[in-house]
Amino acid sequence: MSEHILDRLHAVIDSRKGADPESSYTAKLFDKGPKKIGQKVGEEAVETVIEAVAGDRAGLTAESADLLYHLLVLWSASGVRPEDVWAELARREGLSGIEEKASRSE
Amino acid sequence: MSEHILDRLHAVIDSRKGADPESSYTAKLFDKGPKKIGQKVGEEAVETVIEAVAGDRAGLTAESADLLYHLLVLWSASGVRPEDVWAELARREGLSGIEEKASRSE
Amino acid sequence: MSEHILDRLHAVIDSRKGADPESSYTAKLFDKGPKKIGQKVGEEAVETVIEAVAGDRAGLTAESADLLYHLLVLWSASGVRPEDVWAELARREGLSGIEEKASRSE
Amino acid sequence: MSEHILDRLHAVIDSRKGADPESSYTAKLFDKGPKKIGQKVGEEAVETVIEAVAGDRAGLTAESADLLYHLLVLWSASGVRPEDVWAELARREGLSGIEEKASRSE
Repeated sequence: MSEHILDRLHAVIDSRKGADPESSYTAKLFDKGPKKIGQKVGEEAVETVIEAVAGDRAGLTAESADLLYHLLVLWSASGVRPEDVWAELARREGLSGIEEKASRSE
Repeated sequence: MSEHILDRLHAVIDSRKGADPESSYTAKLFDKGPKKIGQKVGEEAVETVIEAVAGDRAGLTAESADLLYHLLVLWSASGVRPEDVWAELARREGLSGIEEKASRSE
Repeated sequence: MSEHILDRLHAVIDSRKGADPESSYTAKLFDKGPKKIGQKVGEEAVETVIEAVAGDRAGLTAESADLLYHLLVLWSASGVRPEDVWAELARREGLSGIEEKASRSE
Repeated sequence: MSEHILDRLHAVIDSRKGADPESSYTAKLFDKGPKKIGQKVGEEAVETVIEAVAGDRAGLTAESADLLYHLLVLWSASGVRPEDVWAELARREGLSGIEEKASRSE
């Protein structure tokens, strides 16, 4: 239970793979496939940005949660493990790596 | 150091607020303001989705890291604390709450 | 009737402003306001990009139509006239202006 | 010259296919391929939405022009002809078709 909520949530999401689409919203998303899941990630990102620009902090919090949930589903559907993303973030963090990377990718 | 990378990274990002824009990429983003930061979040989300649909797992991992980094900057610029988002996710997780919420928001 | 479909469609859309939200999908969008309309534009753009990356030409055609329809609603809700956008495109076209602008904005 | 600017612009864009990537911004985009072009469409859509939500009419006009330009490049790269999209819009327009479609796709 001391696990981070994102890792815990990812485990729950992962366990829904292959389940009856009628059994849960997550199972339904897996059933629809990567195009539909990617679409939801895009939608939630746009809503997140809109709330930020509109200056609505509660809205930004709620939409960010929606975005992260759908991102976890996308990782699960695509075979990306959260640890891989955490490792990538940690790698960039070393020696201000993230800033260098970010500048280069601009 | 047992902190989750996202919380650790958020602390680093937060510490750059108000710093000389020339001192780091993060400081430059803060200086440009929420519209520009939101734009970057949107961009990285689209790139994340493209890699997922293209079936590129390494690309999806890298773009997801970019997306999360910029999302943390957006939270910091907007006064949203990571704990608030984790709490929102945990709240929804209880009693399958996330699934209910997700269905409702469709 | 020799008008371009986008201009004709914009006129139809514009005529729905202030109509009973129950009378049409367009009237409902106007009633919900710019945040919701912007969200739909973002959604349709993501779907358009997904179809292009997936190489689905019929899907790209259909989603592009959805994107343009919602973009016209956003213009109408925001007081932007199509002629203003056409003029901006024509202005950039002169002397390869669009290419210069595009390079600069990269 | 009585052609609509979007059709005229599409013809110019189409003529850049296969040209030296150094010769123009459009030729460079074609050279980078559909993933990069799709990414630009996504970026410009997000910027368009941000300007609309921020209530910046001049910004919305400029970003809409950027969005449409990149959308035309995406069509050209994907083999979608503008006429196909106009026909799709006209088809939906008949008998309020667009509203029906839009409701169904919600």
